[in-house]
Amino acid sequence: MAGNTFGSVFRVTTWGESHGTAVGATLDGCPPGLPLTARDIQAELDRRRPGRGGPAASPRKEPDAVEILSGVFEGQTTGTPIALAIFNKDAHSKSYDNLKDIFRPGHGDITYLAKYGLRDHRGGGRASARETAGRVAAGAVAKKLLALHGITVRAYTVALGGITTGKRNLAEINDNPLFCPDNEAAATMIGHIETVRKEGDTLGGIVEILATGCPAGLGEPVFEKLDAALACALMSIGAVKGVEIGAGFAAAGMRGSENNDVILPGGFATNNSGGILAGISNGNLAHEPVAVSIGGRHDISAIPRIIPVCEAMVALTLADHLLRQKAIA
Amino acid sequence: MAGNTFGSVFRVTTWGESHGTAVGATLDGCPPGLPLTARDIQAELDRRRPGRGGPAASPRKEPDAVEILSGVFEGQTTGTPIALAIFNKDAHSKSYDNLKDIFRPGHGDITYLAKYGLRDHRGGGRASARETAGRVAAGAVAKKLLALHGITVRAYTVALGGITTGKRNLAEINDNPLFCPDNEAAATMIGHIETVRKEGDTLGGIVEILATGCPAGLGEPVFEKLDAALACALMSIGAVKGVEIGAGFAAAGMRGSENNDVILPGGFATNNSGGILAGISNGNLAHEPVAVSIGGRHDISAIPRIIPVCEAMVALTLADHLLRQKAIA
Amino acid sequence: MAGNTFGSVFRVTTWGESHGTAVGATLDGCPPGLPLTARDIQAELDRRRPGRGGPAASPRKEPDAVEILSGVFEGQTTGTPIALAIFNKDAHSKSYDNLKDIFRPGHGDITYLAKYGLRDHRGGGRASARETAGRVAAGAVAKKLLALHGITVRAYTVALGGITTGKRNLAEINDNPLFCPDNEAAATMIGHIETVRKEGDTLGGIVEILATGCPAGLGEPVFEKLDAALACALMSIGAVKGVEIGAGFAAAGMRGSENNDVILPGGFATNNSGGILAGISNGNLAHEPVAVSIGGRHDISAIPRIIPVCEAMVALTLADHLLRQKAIA
Amino acid sequence: MAGNTFGSVFRVTTWGESHGTAVGATLDGCPPGLPLTARDIQAELDRRRPGRGGPAASPRKEPDAVEILSGVFEGQTTGTPIALAIFNKDAHSKSYDNLKDIFRPGHGDITYLAKYGLRDHRGGGRASARETAGRVAAGAVAKKLLALHGITVRAYTVALGGITTGKRNLAEINDNPLFCPDNEAAATMIGHIETVRKEGDTLGGIVEILATGCPAGLGEPVFEKLDAALACALMSIGAVKGVEIGAGFAAAGMRGSENNDVILPGGFATNNSGGILAGISNGNLAHEPVAVSIGGRHDISAIPRIIPVCEAMVALTLADHLLRQKAIA
Repeated sequence: MAGNTFGSVFRVTTWGESHGTAVGATLDGCPPGLPLTARDIQAELDRRRPGRGGPAASPRKEPDAVEILSGVFEGQTTGTPIALAIFNKDAHSKSYDNLKDIFRPGHGDITYLAKYGLRDHRGGGRASARETAGRVAAGAVAKKLLALHGITVRAYTVALGGITTGKRNLAEINDNPLFCPDNEAAATMIGHIETVRKEGDTLGGIVEILATGCPAGLGEPVFEKLDAALACALMSIGAVKGVEIGAGFAAAGMRGSENNDVILPGGFATNNSGGILAGISNGNLAHEPVAVSIGGRHDISAIPRIIPVCEAMVALTLADHLLRQKAIA
Repeated sequence: MAGNTFGSVFRVTTWGESHGTAVGATLDGCPPGLPLTARDIQAELDRRRPGRGGPAASPRKEPDAVEILSGVFEGQTTGTPIALAIFNKDAHSKSYDNLKDIFRPGHGDITYLAKYGLRDHRGGGRASARETAGRVAAGAVAKKLLALHGITVRAYTVALGGITTGKRNLAEINDNPLFCPDNEAAATMIGHIETVRKEGDTLGGIVEILATGCPAGLGEPVFEKLDAALACALMSIGAVKGVEIGAGFAAAGMRGSENNDVILPGGFATNNSGGILAGISNGNLAHEPVAVSIGGRHDISAIPRIIPVCEAMVALTLADHLLRQKAIA
Repeated sequence: MAGNTFGSVFRVTTWGESHGTAVGATLDGCPPGLPLTARDIQAELDRRRPGRGGPAASPRKEPDAVEILSGVFEGQTTGTPIALAIFNKDAHSKSYDNLKDIFRPGHGDITYLAKYGLRDHRGGGRASARETAGRVAAGAVAKKLLALHGITVRAYTVALGGITTGKRNLAEINDNPLFCPDNEAAATMIGHIETVRKEGDTLGGIVEILATGCPAGLGEPVFEKLDAALACALMSIGAVKGVEIGAGFAAAGMRGSENNDVILPGGFATNNSGGILAGISNGNLAHEPVAVSIGGRHDISAIPRIIPVCEAMVALTLADHLLRQKAIA
Repeated sequence: MAGNTFGSVFRVTTWGESHGTAVGATLDGCPPGLPLTARDIQAELDRRRPGRGGPAASPRKEPDAVEILSGVFEGQTTGTPIALAIFNKDAHSKSYDNLKDIFRPGHGDITYLAKYGLRDHRGGGRASARETAGRVAAGAVAKKLLALHGITVRAYTVALGGITTGKRNLAEINDNPLFCPDNEAAATMIGHIETVRKEGDTLGGIVEILATGCPAGLGEPVFEKLDAALACALMSIGAVKGVEIGAGFAAAGMRGSENNDVILPGGFATNNSGGILAGISNGNLAHEPVAVSIGGRHDISAIPRIIPVCEAMVALTLADHLLRQKAIA
């Protein structure tokens, strides 16, 4: 049973290989009447372009132009499947012929061969960062749905190559190519990246994701808890090897009296739980809900990709659980 | 759409409240011909008994006797659903009447009410550690299936209340009530627990889970990667707020040249990936694959519960992916 | 991937063998706040008792007493899984030892062995009419949910052994053991059954199912159309070999001008579509929506079983689609 | 929860509207290593072209050229999702402006509006026969997989407008535009169609589908029986209002002694069961397994469409169950 579908009610299936004809997503279960244009989706895709990375960017310049092939009529979703495609224009398959007979460490080359008995070696085939374009496209639709309910999702870099942000000023996120909420730290990170790149090496980092406006009651006990769904969503991103909700591993070192968020008449005194109690959102999903570690072979060109993907996966998760809750409310 | 089912092919649905008539699980998709008796399952349930916790144990003494209600004939599974029930014998509902009008911090009392509009307040209702008895019972069946394929799963405590194990001698795991692979550290932890308990407080900890003998090729790209499935499985356990695979968050501080496991003719030189590359097992799932943080209100009685549950969830995940791989191989 | 689960949002998993310890169902996704007692469910189970069949009844006298093991608190559903069990009390396994080495024609004995490599031969094991007790129990909950929305489901016998009803007076359904809406036809049918039984033979029949009060808009294009879901639901009942919606096969002999239901300001002039257009209910699901053929080895004791099962399956289907529609509305 | 996905292991999601940019399918779960080219799929699509209908054909001349966008590398499937698209080239949206404000009887116009609150009125939008192009494309892949296991699926017209075939000579199926196994009957049917068309009316018909070479053991008790899955698959086709397996409704008029297929050492003496016992194939799925009634507004141009669609749906069902069985065998 294949695993290219995410979500139960708001459900996306992605497809496509790095150097195939196209990559894309089919989104089934989007409610009708949502205003949607290709521009809405394009705006999110533009954020993940390798070219955004400034001086340190990848040489591949994909326009990543999305086409809506179905499910939208006269500017609104119709309730039928929304098919999205991004045709590959600048693929250079030949330049990957050198990968035909080798397994790159830290990549899926060896495991895809073990699983399937054959593989599309061009640029990692399905196990390429390019696969995430379909996620970001579908996530853009999820974000539009969430916006109607006053929910926003933002991701940003809080550590890279051992350098951590000194502050979290979300107003600065779009000022630098690292989506870092601290322009000064971002500048140091970029310098470090350039040094390491010259040495032929790469760096890892930590991303934080913040959802605001999330109502209480989302998440399904006991196996599809909201935190379990988020962990699955985020760990499905290539290179992510750790997920924390709220205080995360730090909770292991706290006493119950420190860790448990005191309930006050107007809300919670703290947010160690990341806004999720017993797998259900508590209405306080507003501060450091999720921290994602990204390790492995990374460089500055990966950051503009992973940030929108993290946002997309959290948005898809919340949209799905929002609709699931409607079914029983 | 409710969330009490886990797995696609080897699929378990659990049910039951802390102080209801019974808790249990229905396991659908177990292959026929697997030898199975109630004793096999009972052995796993006995490991999670609060009473196992020695001097610091909970006063609730559940025998937790499992009954197989269907799916087994003449000592073998038949391929039909295996219904498992554990009747509650010592529930003392009245002693929870004090919880009727309060929300305990760090618990699901407030979120269940927000989600459903009403709640079974007795002992946390569905959001009780007792719910996990059904998981452990089903996990015992998964373990039997995995054993036929040479796969074992073991969980153990590596940190508790800030005290970490000095060694990982798996032979010592069953020597102490904390399932700690370091008897000496376990003794220190127990002392610390007793002190903190007298202060009316609780401690958190970190559990590590090790799967050995896992073949290459398990895990489904791209959303149901093996690491995503494990993260979901483990984050669905109450109080777990962080999951790492392999090097986990430490990878964020490494360079690519340090983090990427070199591929040698006979296998991998290191195991920073936790045995999973691009979401697919690499045949090396043998060292520190998963580290689970448990935070929140915990005490020694919780450890014997969470260790078998962690093993159960990993076993259920691997059994499901083992059968899924058979469908396409 | 096993098939003992029905429905997506209102989802039931049944389990149990004819001569195992118990049969039952786990119902996940029932909205909270629905008043529910064991008596509600027992009333439906009592309708399917073999003993109800009067003089021609089966010698097996099961009380079929249902127990609610979870999911109900203080007389209301809580939104958590509702586990239902009916313990087998009068099983007489030994009397089936003669079936150990033979395959009964028209039964699953031979195909279960082909599929699983072994089988529980006692009374058909899982492939027994007894399996449907779990369906009826879960269907009773679905009926309660539907009643809140003004929807009713009724099934009745319209043909048996070549004898057809002359009228459809639903007030007479409960007057005779055949659930026949024509007492006179029922008497003839019963006489015929007794004659055929003496000859050691059995009869087939046709059941009709009527749902009233169903709103427009239920059913999901394109593979989970309401009629496709109903066909699946009803064809999953043992011995059912044909399903028609509305005019059914008769439509093949009509012209478009006869068959297409004219749309009038107040509704539809006719109901050849069975209240379902393009897979979506049209608000007119009120006349002969489904006719189910039951063939194979049947006798009067089967009728009291299949009528409640047909109602249960239609109720489960409608309840599921009612909740699914809420998710997008 | 939307319904545009069919199958569990071999799983297809279709998308697209009659007059949108394209229609297509995403097929997830196809085993790797299956030889596949666009030509294989094109051959099936060509069979469903309206233009095939000879003198009585629809004026719309779609080339229906399929493109494989992903999942195939160097002529073989890779185990990743296979995205298929057929771009609409000759849509003439404007010619449907007259449908904007009316509901055609027998169509989904009124129910789509009831369900979604808005609709794409152009040519029926999603509720168009054009939607089935995606099914046929995916079904072509299923057929290739089945062929490797020696399974074939063929559909043919056995009744149209009250005219029934006198014989079932499958060698004649491709000789006439009606896929009728009796050229003489086909000629009479065509004459009748032309007469009725001049009167501005349409005809219904009955299609029979035959699967040969199907092994014993396919089908999942109890809700996903092979006959239940086939009934769902076929009833999901627009205009289909009845499904029979084997003897179908005729079984209701037989005695058990007539209807039950006697088991002989070499197989079954008859095939009233349609090759399916207790929901599991008995290895005899070789004669009249399914008869589908098509009613409503039909003409000769519909036949070339529905025959390949019936084959596609049966092929998709069998491919899915073939892989499901591998998971437990």
